[in-house]
Amino acid sequence: MITRMSSLFLRTLREDPADAEVPSHKLLVRAGYVRRVAPGGYSWLPLGLRVLRNIETVVREEMDAIGAQEIQFPALLPKEPYEVSGRWTEYGPGVFRLKDRKGADYLLGPTHEELFALTVKGEYSSYKDFPVILYQIQTKYRDEARPRAGILRGREFVMKDSYSFDLDDSGLDRSYQLHRDAYIRIFQRLGLEYVIVAATSGAMGGSASEEFLAVAETGEDTYVRSTGSGYAANVEAVVTPAPPERALDGLPEAQVHYTPNTPTIETLVDFLNGASLGRTFTAADTLKNVLVKTRRPGEKDWQLLGVGVPGDREVDMKRLEASLEPAEVALLEEADFAANPFLVKGYIGPGALAANGVRYLVDPRIVRGTAWVTGADKADHHVVDLVCGRDFTPDGTIEAAEVREGDPSPDGEGTLVAARGIEIGHIFQLGRKYTDAFEVDALGPDSKPVRIIMGSYGIGVSRLVAAIAEQHHDELGLVWPRAVAPADVHLVVAGKDDTVFEGGERIAAALSERGVRVLLDDRKATPGVKFADAELVGVPTIVVVGRGLAKGVVEVKDRASGERSEIAVDDVVEHLAALVGR
Amino acid sequence: MITRMSSLFLRTLREDPADAEVPSHKLLVRAGYVRRVAPGGYSWLPLGLRVLRNIETVVREEMDAIGAQEIQFPALLPKEPYEVSGRWTEYGPGVFRLKDRKGADYLLGPTHEELFALTVKGEYSSYKDFPVILYQIQTKYRDEARPRAGILRGREFVMKDSYSFDLDDSGLDRSYQLHRDAYIRIFQRLGLEYVIVAATSGAMGGSASEEFLAVAETGEDTYVRSTGSGYAANVEAVVTPAPPERALDGLPEAQVHYTPNTPTIETLVDFLNGASLGRTFTAADTLKNVLVKTRRPGEKDWQLLGVGVPGDREVDMKRLEASLEPAEVALLEEADFAANPFLVKGYIGPGALAANGVRYLVDPRIVRGTAWVTGADKADHHVVDLVCGRDFTPDGTIEAAEVREGDPSPDGEGTLVAARGIEIGHIFQLGRKYTDAFEVDALGPDSKPVRIIMGSYGIGVSRLVAAIAEQHHDELGLVWPRAVAPADVHLVVAGKDDTVFEGGERIAAALSERGVRVLLDDRKATPGVKFADAELVGVPTIVVVGRGLAKGVVEVKDRASGERSEIAVDDVVEHLAALVGR
Repeated sequence: MITRMSSLFLRTLREDPADAEVPSHKLLVRAGYVRRVAPGGYSWLPLGLRVLRNIETVVREEMDAIGAQEIQFPALLPKEPYEVSGRWTEYGPGVFRLKDRKGADYLLGPTHEELFALTVKGEYSSYKDFPVILYQIQTKYRDEARPRAGILRGREFVMKDSYSFDLDDSGLDRSYQLHRDAYIRIFQRLGLEYVIVAATSGAMGGSASEEFLAVAETGEDTYVRSTGSGYAANVEAVVTPAPPERALDGLPEAQVHYTPNTPTIETLVDFLNGASLGRTFTAADTLKNVLVKTRRPGEKDWQLLGVGVPGDREVDMKRLEASLEPAEVALLEEADFAANPFLVKGYIGPGALAANGVRYLVDPRIVRGTAWVTGADKADHHVVDLVCGRDFTPDGTIEAAEVREGDPSPDGEGTLVAARGIEIGHIFQLGRKYTDAFEVDALGPDSKPVRIIMGSYGIGVSRLVAAIAEQHHDELGLVWPRAVAPADVHLVVAGKDDTVFEGGERIAAALSERGVRVLLDDRKATPGVKFADAELVGVPTIVVVGRGLAKGVVEVKDRASGERSEIAVDDVVEHLAALVGR
Repeated sequence: MITRMSSLFLRTLREDPADAEVPSHKLLVRAGYVRRVAPGGYSWLPLGLRVLRNIETVVREEMDAIGAQEIQFPALLPKEPYEVSGRWTEYGPGVFRLKDRKGADYLLGPTHEELFALTVKGEYSSYKDFPVILYQIQTKYRDEARPRAGILRGREFVMKDSYSFDLDDSGLDRSYQLHRDAYIRIFQRLGLEYVIVAATSGAMGGSASEEFLAVAETGEDTYVRSTGSGYAANVEAVVTPAPPERALDGLPEAQVHYTPNTPTIETLVDFLNGASLGRTFTAADTLKNVLVKTRRPGEKDWQLLGVGVPGDREVDMKRLEASLEPAEVALLEEADFAANPFLVKGYIGPGALAANGVRYLVDPRIVRGTAWVTGADKADHHVVDLVCGRDFTPDGTIEAAEVREGDPSPDGEGTLVAARGIEIGHIFQLGRKYTDAFEVDALGPDSKPVRIIMGSYGIGVSRLVAAIAEQHHDELGLVWPRAVAPADVHLVVAGKDDTVFEGGERIAAALSERGVRVLLDDRKATPGVKFADAELVGVPTIVVVGRGLAKGVVEVKDRASGERSEIAVDDVVEHLAALVGR
């Protein structure tokens, strides 16, 4: 195939678009791959569409290879199934909703768990039918509060979503592993540097959950990884290692101290260290109790919740929210304090919470036998040596404290460092949330119904175009990996002679004959303009047909390394066909 | 490629779906190609998606062959461009509208003229850039009042829409012809029987316009064709041949007659023929004047319009509406007659209309020199021998009279007969409606701006699946043309022996090796069930591996003709590969 720049619907731009911050956004617009149509809505111009389709093909091949079957649902979906699952309300403003001419409610599908579950229920009925994996590569919609970074976070985007249906947990484990392996192959084929991070299950509910993140400084997702192992996790999913419990015997008694003007940890530690208590305190010796309120989906009333964390750490609201999901969390307002006078701001301790029936969850570091300085539930008073398991008994633990660089890795090897990435895939043991909602059963061998268990697995296909561009570019432009490049060879005709143009055409025709996809720059432009466009567009191999032609050579340049070599005209077709694997 | 029925996500149905009326709808559901998700919203199951993709491939290849370039727009589009073009209001309830979380208005794209025009304006600026043809194969949305017939008229559907941009009319003619030829090739490759009918331009505004209709008794679109030529047209687009004008000299004077109780054409003709006027009258000698009111877009007030047609024909409101578009048309209400007392119901003549300044348009048969019996603008009175061009002068002609079987063909050859079809394509010289709205200009060689002229061209890609099924089925099921079939060969293993299963597997593997796409029925079902499913699913070639295997033969059956032949096992792979063109 030959694509001629002289007629290609492509105009490159010299300037970065005003609204672009990240390199992929700037370069995809400048190189004429995408154009903005609306907030979070982009059109794909010819080269962009090719890259998108190339990625789709890789994804499709690997999904087919694990026996997944492609189907396709509408994007415009009726409200009813989403009401049954509860997601019609759970999604809040993040989903586009509309009414048809008869006033019936619809939404633009963000993901399709409901429809897949209903379809399997409609077609299959016997245990012999299972397992089955279905997928679609489809346009999806989310009304993002802040669409950004071009196609990295759009409101209309292409996603591969697949769903596995199994008879039991071990089947789900198999389907999950099949997807995990397929995703690894997909991202490897696409030339991506990625990490697999432990993830929380979010609003979906479920058990095992991992995200594939493309490593990128510009990524929206932060995660931590270990310096001493392959461990990586979303900050929300980091499990705090608990220290061993300690014996209670012989620990000093708890003592209440008058600690005037110490509403913060810093002022408290300073005061204690100046109070001749015979030892030195740090913030890590204090127990900070943060009060929030929570509300379960569908409930009206808020419940108070006390969260205890070591005083040297903040509560990370994202981690707290993830831990409590699907319940909502909110900070207390003045009215809440007024309604609960036992909450003495700045001096809240476990005692008043227990006495007033407030649920109290603590950081996993706060184990039986650890002693703490904490609030005495009385203004200007703190208690020292309050021992967990002796003087107070939390209702459980919670992952709410911030994760910091240097924290020990949960797997015991190395310490954590922070990194950023772009979420490109998510695999997820969904469980029975949807099969329960829609009563998706198979008749077992004993004629008893077996409730089906689901997994859900997503790849952000259009986002991958940007993620790959984030990892594969330089100061001159895009540098596509071969598997996704919009052409195999960018053939630049550099010269004004007819002989040069004819030579370019001849080589392009011979390459095309061999199945090599050629982007032929046959424009009447200066070599400088053509070279700059070739670097910008980012086809992996650039061939220059120019002055050397008279000597019987052309120049072949590797876009990534910049290496150039002169190749005899007679050999160039074979050389390039071998290079691109045709 | 081998697809195994034992694991394929396919369950065929024995019963027609309750909501299905047309064969394609019944069979596509029964054979497990599609499933209903919402009114006018269908999911594509594996075999259906393959047929859809096969059609897309044919369309894409032929579009690429005429130099059209594929791009892709979002389906979720901002209101603004559609407001500029006027279509935001013109579309009425036929388009899905929604608001995002910020309250901004959006629509789900029905067609994309605005976006294409804006994109070309954004990228191109010089006459040297043109012509260009752009297209997309995309999911589109229309809020149909009555979605019906499965995927024949859905609310979410796949369409190929392309747009040509030319510097002048002759360029547009070329682009139009390129599309016309490409469409002919596409529909031929898809094995469709179709007609090209002259069409009106509808709300789009423009000049040349033709529709491609798949011939189908169940089709929603009626058209007429000539018994004596290739002429075919939408009823709305039929141009009435005008008879020659006649000399006015020597025609009898107009005479008003008392014609009591003759408010209808029938009673009038009976009365005249009983009134000894020396000749016989037929309904075709009378001139029926129908009063309507019209209103142009954006105007508030209605205008009266008189429409004169020969009395033996009704006014066809669809033809009248098409003639007056984009103006609205409505019948008069009692209040309108009350407000215009010169309109004497049942006795309206050209005289009162002229005297009161009412615009008066007549059927093309009413030419200068023809004499008519018509209303005398007075109850119970008619005028005889009222001569066009002498006694009254219409303001022009209008295509409003019904078209009837037996009418002469507009091309002068043969007479018209009615037929039905399914609209599968529409090609259309759009003109400058959108380039005017968005000021899409190219700088000409003389540095003066040239307003670009557009064509728009659509193919209902998902509808084609149903249109092909309408034409290609029998009482047993679907009968796909080879170009779109979901597999090349349906290989039925008929028997219980392991040897038969092994034989089937071996042949399937050898065929797959040769690039033949095999649907392998390896289920543990009776041969009867498997044969019935094979007929229903409609793969063009059915191979039965069964008892004959012991004798070294298999049976090859042509699904369309029912012809069977025994082929030696050793030859079957070559035989089938040749048959399917691999």
